[in-house]
Formats: sequence, C-alpha cells, structure tokens
Amino acid sequence: MPMTAHWLDELAYDENGLLPAVVQDSASGRVLMVGWVNREALQRTIESSFVHFWSRSRQKLWRKGETSGNSLRLLEAWRDCDDDTLLFKVEALGPTCHTGEESCFYRRLEGPDVG
Amino acid sequence: MPMTAHWLDELAYDENGLLPAVVQDSASGRVLMVGWVNREALQRTIESSFVHFWSRSRQKLWRKGETSGNSLRLLEAWRDCDDDTLLFKVEALGPTCHTGEESCFYRRLEGPDVG
Repeated sequence: MPMTAHWLDELAYDENGLLPAVVQDSASGRVLMVGWVNREALQRTIESSFVHFWSRSRQKLWRKGETSGNSLRLLEAWRDCDDDTLLFKVEALGPTCHTGEESCFYRRLEGPDVG
Repeated sequence: MPMTAHWLDELAYDENGLLPAVVQDSASGRVLMVGWVNREALQRTIESSFVHFWSRSRQKLWRKGETSGNSLRLLEAWRDCDDDTLLFKVEALGPTCHTGEESCFYRRLEGPDVG
C-alpha cells in the first residue's frame, strides 16, 4: 500500500508541477545543492529516505547518486512560509557536486562589494 | 559610474530572467529563505551590500527589509556549478520571515520516513 503524506498536496507547485529544494548537510550546515522536485519525487524521497529530483534538462525522475553513488539520505524536510520551497537536511554519502566538490556552491563571486 | 561585476552576464538566468538565491545566515548556518533575483536585483545587491530580490507576485524589484526593516547584509555570494542558482551568506538584521519567524523554514514536514 503506498504511503502518502498529507502535505504532498498542500505544496504550491509551479506551473510545471515543480518546487526548488535546498539541500543542506545536517552535520556541517553547508548548503550542498538546489534541485527541483515534483510530487512523485517527493513521494519517492519519503518512501525511500533518499533524495529524488526531477531533472528539468532530461525530463525524468532521478535518485541523486543513482550513478555516482553519492546519495543524499534525508534526515529532515521543512517547507517555507508560502509552501513553494523545501529544505532537506541530509547526510551526504560522498561529494554532492558532479565535479567532485563537496558542494555545488564552490565558486565565490567577486564584485565591487562582494568578495 | 555604475559598477559591474563580470559574472553578472555569465549566469544562467531562466526564461524569465530569474535565478533562485538561497539566503543563509553566515553566523548560525541557518537557511533563512529562498528568493528570486534578476540581473538588476543582483546589480543593486552588490552596489549596496543589501540583498534585493525580484518579486514574482508583484513583478517588481524590492530590497528585503524595505518596509519591515529586516534587511539582509550580504557578506558572501556563491554560484553553483551550472550557474543557475546562487547562495548568499548574510547578516540578518532581524527575523527574515514575514511571519516574524527567524527563518521561512519553520515548519517541519512529517511523513512515513520524515519527522
């Protein structure tokens, strides 16, 4: 019998049925990546405890780490005040970025008042 | 003379000219909110050192805290590996959420394997 969480139908999905999800390392607090999820990705994430995303470029559901092995184990999920963004606190089983970096945010921006 | 950072034109803005920006409290590591920025919001952010967003609902540029006073002072900005998401590390001058909560992510989701 499929498991369903009531909040899956309360979220403010965009016109493509998607929401951004911020992934944060639960231990270090580091922001690792932002991915997009639809209802099915969320359903699979809560059923498996491993983060699933919807790939906008490939137009398919994928489990983070399905090829690299660098999965994200979901520890906590939070929704924002207007239900259109999620925050996943995770244990990262390896570097999250496809470049091999721990986080996808590894390039700091320089500017007149930044950096 | 306007100041311009070279990376402003290197980002992968979406079809509406927008990018999501994750806002993280630099001291606590807490994720405070996710907002949307366009090129002008970024330009004003780096010129002023205060975070500006593009409001998708009101279709206008705004400085976070312009009415509430709860501004976000930009300390560091990072881009992700595919240039379509930003991470702002900030000092928050007051609670970030319009509800008065410190973070917009104040509701934890419960589910079969979450919560």
